[in-house]
Order: sequence, then structure tokens, then C-alpha cells
Amino acid sequence: MSKKITIKEVAHKVGLSITAVSQILNGKGARFSEGNIKKVFAARDELHYVPSLAARNLSNKTDVTIGVLVPAISNPFFSEFLQSIENYSDPKTHVMMIGLDGDRGQLYSAIEGLLSQGIDGLIVAVAVDGYPEVNALLKENLIPYIVLDQNNTKDSDFIAADDFHGGQLAAQYLCSLGHEKISIVAANSEATTYNLTVRLNGFLETCRDSGIKKENIQIIKTQFTKHGGQKTAAAIIAFRPTAIFTLSDELAIGVLGGLNDYGFKVPDDFSLIGYDDTDYAEFMNPKLTTIRQPIPLLAKYALEMLKNRMINPKIKEQIRTVDVELIIRDSCKKR
Amino acid sequence: MSKKITIKEVAHKVGLSITAVSQILNGKGARFSEGNIKKVFAARDELHYVPSLAARNLSNKTDVTIGVLVPAISNPFFSEFLQSIENYSDPKTHVMMIGLDGDRGQLYSAIEGLLSQGIDGLIVAVAVDGYPEVNALLKENLIPYIVLDQNNTKDSDFIAADDFHGGQLAAQYLCSLGHEKISIVAANSEATTYNLTVRLNGFLETCRDSGIKKENIQIIKTQFTKHGGQKTAAAIIAFRPTAIFTLSDELAIGVLGGLNDYGFKVPDDFSLIGYDDTDYAEFMNPKLTTIRQPIPLLAKYALEMLKNRMINPKIKEQIRTVDVELIIRDSCKKR
Repeated sequence: MSKKITIKEVAHKVGLSITAVSQILNGKGARFSEGNIKKVFAARDELHYVPSLAARNLSNKTDVTIGVLVPAISNPFFSEFLQSIENYSDPKTHVMMIGLDGDRGQLYSAIEGLLSQGIDGLIVAVAVDGYPEVNALLKENLIPYIVLDQNNTKDSDFIAADDFHGGQLAAQYLCSLGHEKISIVAANSEATTYNLTVRLNGFLETCRDSGIKKENIQIIKTQFTKHGGQKTAAAIIAFRPTAIFTLSDELAIGVLGGLNDYGFKVPDDFSLIGYDDTDYAEFMNPKLTTIRQPIPLLAKYALEMLKNRMINPKIKEQIRTVDVELIIRDSCKKR
Repeated sequence: MSKKITIKEVAHKVGLSITAVSQILNGKGARFSEGNIKKVFAARDELHYVPSLAARNLSNKTDVTIGVLVPAISNPFFSEFLQSIENYSDPKTHVMMIGLDGDRGQLYSAIEGLLSQGIDGLIVAVAVDGYPEVNALLKENLIPYIVLDQNNTKDSDFIAADDFHGGQLAAQYLCSLGHEKISIVAANSEATTYNLTVRLNGFLETCRDSGIKKENIQIIKTQFTKHGGQKTAAAIIAFRPTAIFTLSDELAIGVLGGLNDYGFKVPDDFSLIGYDDTDYAEFMNPKLTTIRQPIPLLAKYALEMLKNRMINPKIKEQIRTVDVELIIRDSCKKR
């Protein structure tokens, strides 16, 4: 049985460190002298060194790199998600994050870039519906990946919070307080995603079932940011609802700021309920009533499912849904 | 003149795509069949293919990967910094981010991990003072790197906002409003950094020069988070200052929440000034007066300086300081 040549032998032959040899062989060694670079490639060819792919894949001893693609790093839902992914990663798992800053036009090139960097798996938290070329890219490259909060029709592994139930909980709570005229602040077409639509539908169906008339519901679409929420204040005030549901805490924080600018008070003038329970919710004035998404759990499961898929690409489709929870604080009151 | 063998020839010879060959040669091709993997390595040896390091380094045509290390992704100063780094990166520059979530014990292994992934350059926004082994690791690996907001004694490229001036501006403003008894909320020893110390010194020296007595200054050290700030409310109330300076907006948001919990109002009971001007400042109630750090500019310059260093490792040490600005909103008033 011939002994397999490892990078150690190559390093020994040329008298450089394993890290240096690895970097040179991976095309990342431009800072080393030309002489050393040539020596390393000569030794590699002479020894017929082949990186140990099997060892890399079957044990946890070597490093893996996971790509995580989010719509915007500076949205606290995603920054908390990213931080949780890091916290749950073992030291040999490296996380490569890309935030698109709302520009989904960058989606294809971002994934292509991650693939060219040789990631071992990918978590996609950006909607890829309507981007068939992105789906094709993922399938073609046989890369293990998992999608977060998206339309589950693409036969890929899938994790989501129960958005329909979240919408229901928000509507039930407002109805239980006697509200019958409600403004909803949602994402505009550039920012909306499948799960936001489900969330909205959960809310709307529950309102309808509770007997709220269609003409007493206002839906305002805006940028999915604090400033986007802030800009809707005038339209809300003109509609004169008694309660407001925003599809995210970021939107709620914006709406709160916008209403304050006009001299209106929450919850005295309007009740307000958000969505996400990012860690700003309890620091608002008033403290924000909201629907809590279990962000650390979403991150933990996403990592687990991706690892399952990386270890065994042939397992059947994994689907996991986590539940959400109503968090009552101070921003809603009885009508 | 013999023609240089490129990856295209290797791909052509084996009948696979360039991406596939690149992934296999970089040890990331475990999902391809063993037959294809063997064919690729055989073709590589036969053709004596060597990745074009010079081309990679001297032109912008090939991809580069930059590592960015921050203390915590979920701190908005750093999430905005990371998003700005992404926004200023060209499509061929990939950004690999790591957030330590406050655990500086992970510093060495995080950098080691980034190095083993073959990054081409590194932006270190975590204090490496007092971690000589980290400095040694960076120097030993000859990796181009730049430090943000740190002690500038390590002969490395260095970018910082003018923290001393920021501290001065905050103190001058509070003194101009007639405040003579002030609480300062600072980071505890696990979280403090060189630049936070400079910021504090700028504030303290200005207070002293304005004739504020030492016994009228309270310094409280806490975790560098919203919850850390919130916990200081009782100590602040007991000291009975007329104004509060926090070393970050996150701390200010926490202090505001804590004071609200005790029924105290800003600015009627206490004036409050923060630091950073993250995008939450203007959405607080009251809107937060603060010192603005030019986060996008810091990111832009950090990238530029790192690229300079990557193109020419021999240029002399680069040092750049950007100025900060007082942003007056509604959280301070005359004593």
C-alpha cells in the first residue's frame, strides 16, 4: 500500500511551513518570493501531491467554509442572525457573509463570487424566487445549500419561522383590544419576499374572520427600513386607524419616529405592533409590542441542516418550521 | 517564448468547466466524482499548470478576498461598517466577515482561520493590543492588514476617527449648556479599547479645563451593549448628575431605557449625549444628540489603504484619521 502524499511532505521538501505551502498551492501566495513559489509547485508535481478531498469531507478535522447571503447586514434581524450563525459555528467552520444592501441585482454575482471562493455550503436568506438563473447556478454547482424564509417549491432544504401564525397572532391581539380600523405597513415590491406575503396573509385572513371590513384596512408599501416606515406616517394619520401593524420592528421604529414628528403618541393616539423582536424593541419608548422570531434557533437549525446535507448530499429534502410568539409590551392599548 | 498554461487549458483537456476545475484544484471539489477529480489532477501535472499569482496580484481581473474582523456584528457601528465595506467593494472583491461577539479569546483562532482560508488582506477592527501572539501571527504570515481605531505603535497601517476631538466636542457642548456634574458611561475592562480610552480622555481633559471638579465626575464601567447601559441607571440616579455622556449610542439607548424604567425623563431630568450616530440615534424618543463617526468614510479609506498595501507591500506605513462631528438633536438642554 503506497503511502498517501500529504501537504506535510511537500512542506518538508521545500522547507516552508504547511500554511505557506497551502497558500501558495491555492493561488494565494503572491507575497512569497518567486523562488519559493516555483519550488513549491515543482515539489507538488514531483511528489504528485493531491489535496485530500475525502479526508476533508468525511472528518471534521479540516476547515469548512460556509457562505451566508443576507439582504442587508445592517438590518438587525440579519445582523443578529449572522452573529448567531457565528456563535453556533465550531472553530473549524468559517463563515463568509455577504450583505446585498437591498440590491437583489447583485444576487447572481454574489453567489458566483462565493462559489469561486470555494465555499463548502451556503445559507441563502435572500429571496431567490423569480431568479431562475440563480437557482440554476446553485443546482449546477452541486453546492449544498439551504434557504431561509422562502417559497418552498424549489426542492431545496428549507427553514422558516411560521409567518402565517405570526400574522394571525398580531391580528388576534389587535382585535382582542377592540381595534376595527387598522393600517398595515408592508414592504414595497423591491423588498418583499414570499415569507412577508405569508405574514401579511395571516394577518389579513384573521382580520376578515374577525369581521373587520375591507375598507377599514389600509396597506401601505414602502422601503423595508426605518426611514421607509417613517415616511408612511402622513398616510397613516390621514387614514385615521386606531391601530398599526408593521411587518418588521425596523418599520415600527420608523413609524414611531414619524408619528412623534407629527406630535402623535403611541399608544394613546395609535396602537402599534411590530414583528421580529430584534433587541431594539424593548428599548423603544414606548416599549414595542411585537411578534418574536427565534433568531438564534433559526441560525442553529440552518447550520445543523446544512451540515447534514454536506455530510450526506443524498438525504431527502429537509424542511423545518419554528414557531413565533406574541410579546406584549407597552405600544398597544384597548381601543 | 512558451505560452503560459492557464486553467482554461486544464478545463479544456478534461472537459469540465473552469469553475469546476478551480474548485477541484483548490481542494473544494469533494462533490465531484472521483474520476473527474483524478482526471483534473492528472491534467494539471501533465500540463504543469501553475496558478497565475502575478496576474492575480497585479491586475484587478481576478478575485480577491478580504477578511474583516469586528468585535460584534450586531453592534450597529460594526454592522454599518461591514455593510459599507461591502458597498465600496468592487464585484471581484469578496469580503469574509467574522464577529467575535465580544469574546476576544477567539481572536487568534479567528485570524488563523481567515489565513487558512487564503485571504489576501485583512481589516482588524478588534483591539490586538495586549495580544502579542496575534501580532506575531499577522507579521509572520506577511499578510497585508490594516487596523481600525487602535493603538498606533505596532508599525501597521492604521485608520481611526479622531476620538480625542470627539470627547472634547461632547464635553464642550455639555459645558456650554451649563452642566457641572456629569456621569460618564464607559466600557468595562473586557470591552474597552485604546480608542475608547482616548475618547474618554478627550472628554475628561475638557471638563477639567472648563473647571469641573473631579468629585463632580462619575465614571461607570459596564458591558458595551444596550443592556450594559440600562444597568447603570440606578448608579446614575444615585449620583444625581445633570448630564450624562455615554461612549456609544448603544450605551445611550440602554441608559435612556433604564432611566425611563425609573420614571425619569431625558432631557428634563438628565441631559444625555451619545457617540457614533448610528442610524438609531434619530429614531430614539427624544432624538439622540451624539457625536457622528463617518462610518462609510472609515470603510472606504480602510479598503483603499488595504488595496494600496496589497498592490505594493513595500510602501511606508499609512496613517489616516477622519474627523467627527457634533450632531445636536433633542436629548440635551440647558441646566
